[in-house]
Amino acid sequence: MKIVVDAMGGDYAPQAVIEGVVAAVKEFNVHIILVGRQDEMIAELSKYQYPKEKIELVHASEVVEMHDHATVSIRKKKDSSISVGLRLMKEKGYDAFISAGNTGGVVAASAYNLGMLEGVERPAIGLVVPTLKKFSFLIDVGANTESKQEHLFQSALMANIYTREVLGVQNPAIGLLNIGEESSKGSGFEKEAHKMMEERLPNFIGNVEANEVFTGKADCIICDGFVGNIVIKVAEGLMESASALMRREIAKSPIAILGAMMMKSRLAYIKKFADYSEYGGAPLLGVNGLVMIGHGRSSPKAIKNAIRATMREVEHNIIDVMIKEIAGKTSP
Amino acid sequence: MKIVVDAMGGDYAPQAVIEGVVAAVKEFNVHIILVGRQDEMIAELSKYQYPKEKIELVHASEVVEMHDHATVSIRKKKDSSISVGLRLMKEKGYDAFISAGNTGGVVAASAYNLGMLEGVERPAIGLVVPTLKKFSFLIDVGANTESKQEHLFQSALMANIYTREVLGVQNPAIGLLNIGEESSKGSGFEKEAHKMMEERLPNFIGNVEANEVFTGKADCIICDGFVGNIVIKVAEGLMESASALMRREIAKSPIAILGAMMMKSRLAYIKKFADYSEYGGAPLLGVNGLVMIGHGRSSPKAIKNAIRATMREVEHNIIDVMIKEIAGKTSP
Repeated sequence: MKIVVDAMGGDYAPQAVIEGVVAAVKEFNVHIILVGRQDEMIAELSKYQYPKEKIELVHASEVVEMHDHATVSIRKKKDSSISVGLRLMKEKGYDAFISAGNTGGVVAASAYNLGMLEGVERPAIGLVVPTLKKFSFLIDVGANTESKQEHLFQSALMANIYTREVLGVQNPAIGLLNIGEESSKGSGFEKEAHKMMEERLPNFIGNVEANEVFTGKADCIICDGFVGNIVIKVAEGLMESASALMRREIAKSPIAILGAMMMKSRLAYIKKFADYSEYGGAPLLGVNGLVMIGHGRSSPKAIKNAIRATMREVEHNIIDVMIKEIAGKTSP
Repeated sequence: MKIVVDAMGGDYAPQAVIEGVVAAVKEFNVHIILVGRQDEMIAELSKYQYPKEKIELVHASEVVEMHDHATVSIRKKKDSSISVGLRLMKEKGYDAFISAGNTGGVVAASAYNLGMLEGVERPAIGLVVPTLKKFSFLIDVGANTESKQEHLFQSALMANIYTREVLGVQNPAIGLLNIGEESSKGSGFEKEAHKMMEERLPNFIGNVEANEVFTGKADCIICDGFVGNIVIKVAEGLMESASALMRREIAKSPIAILGAMMMKSRLAYIKKFADYSEYGGAPLLGVNGLVMIGHGRSSPKAIKNAIRATMREVEHNIIDVMIKEIAGKTSP
């Protein structure tokens, strides 16, 4: 299995990416093609012992910065690690591409270089979120912020396949994120999407309210990319603010400090609940090839876990399954 | 001061509402007009000792149920506690109306019975959310789910006045909820709203990302009602799920249980951070009269606090201030 990894993507690149890649090749049966500035990659790799034959380097002179506009990776920085990596994947037939870089840039360059799957008009980013039961697959968390109802329907079809094939949930329950349970809720957009899913998805369970995202009511939760992005950022921000507040309050009392220490082993589990790096990445679906997007603040552990998650996608051959199952189903 | 309270609104009505009202009249200098089914109100009130002259009863035979469509309060149940209460407020010149009932019903009936403020096209619900600094005023959390950019601008003007007059923040920093910091982020809708606020609001600080809602970066955070509703429900759901998980994990270890007990006094503060009942209600702005919307699951404490918050609005005369400051400012 050969996976292309953007060495320059993410706030802690290339250090964190390369540390994660080294850990992955030691632990997993995978071959990594690192794309980025050759000298920087060599300098980082020199810090580690690892099976040399499992990491290959490809030079890319440019880097799409986190603040660059999404189309920069296509129009201006044609020699960026994102563009070079995706072209390489396509030309050489490598199995997948992983980047923790500029999300908009990865989305735009993936659609441009790999093209779309037949029957899918827009890419969508899925995210495995932890729930009280196990997890839910939330899609779209930020690829397409001007959705039409058919885009949501296409996301639902892809989520259905991903959840079944990669996450192992047979007949996943699919819900539409909305501001009320009844089919009459939401704006015209949500009502139309609801109708479309109800008529054409046998495992559609109706609307899911935002307070149920983390309870595990649905296996797949479908929403527009603007709303999905708000959901994950509110969750992330709230967990961070609540933790900061908790640390601040506990620090005020020696007894509370001792109490916190006694709870530590249990709190570790909860921390894991909120830790994006556990799954490591968010699959970009809809494009004609496997692309995994890492969190901008990806740690080495997150990179390693993203590689493992991507390997599962490759093993389950999900692009072929999607091509077979989706084509013809999305036209009205 | 005379405030009309919907005795039948909320999941625990009329019990919780009446218990809260009794607590309020004992503690505050306020006169309450309770609207609802006379026999039920009398039965509940008979449980308490309170200054009889401070609570007046007005009969309304119907109740807008939580699952009723928003327009039911206008078109079908004309003798509902919501409609009767709002008409009463207008006819008798009472100071405000409070309901923890069907939110859509309260919004629709308020706009219908009270009319809109000059220069405001759509009602918006504001919510005081706790932050690491103190609080932010998030608006709209669910009144108008099909916003145009001028509705967001009008919400910003109202939030500015509310935050200054009622919450006491001089020159509040106003932010637009968006999926990135740069003005180029979001869909066309957010870009237009950003431009409008930048040109016409001197205290506009630009986009605020959803992970900054609870950090206190902005005093007022402006968004569409669909998105705002998602924000508060994700936050509510996440805090509930995280608490449930924490209890489950702590219960597994006697040492952790002891540790949790030692942290209790500090955790109480954090619980307060996430407790909607602290503020008690969410003001419905844009209609020509003071309306406060309670949480559907309002406890007696939440009702009492909603009455206190409403009294502050009355004292600061915010409807008059809004009429004076907004008219003429919102036309292009």
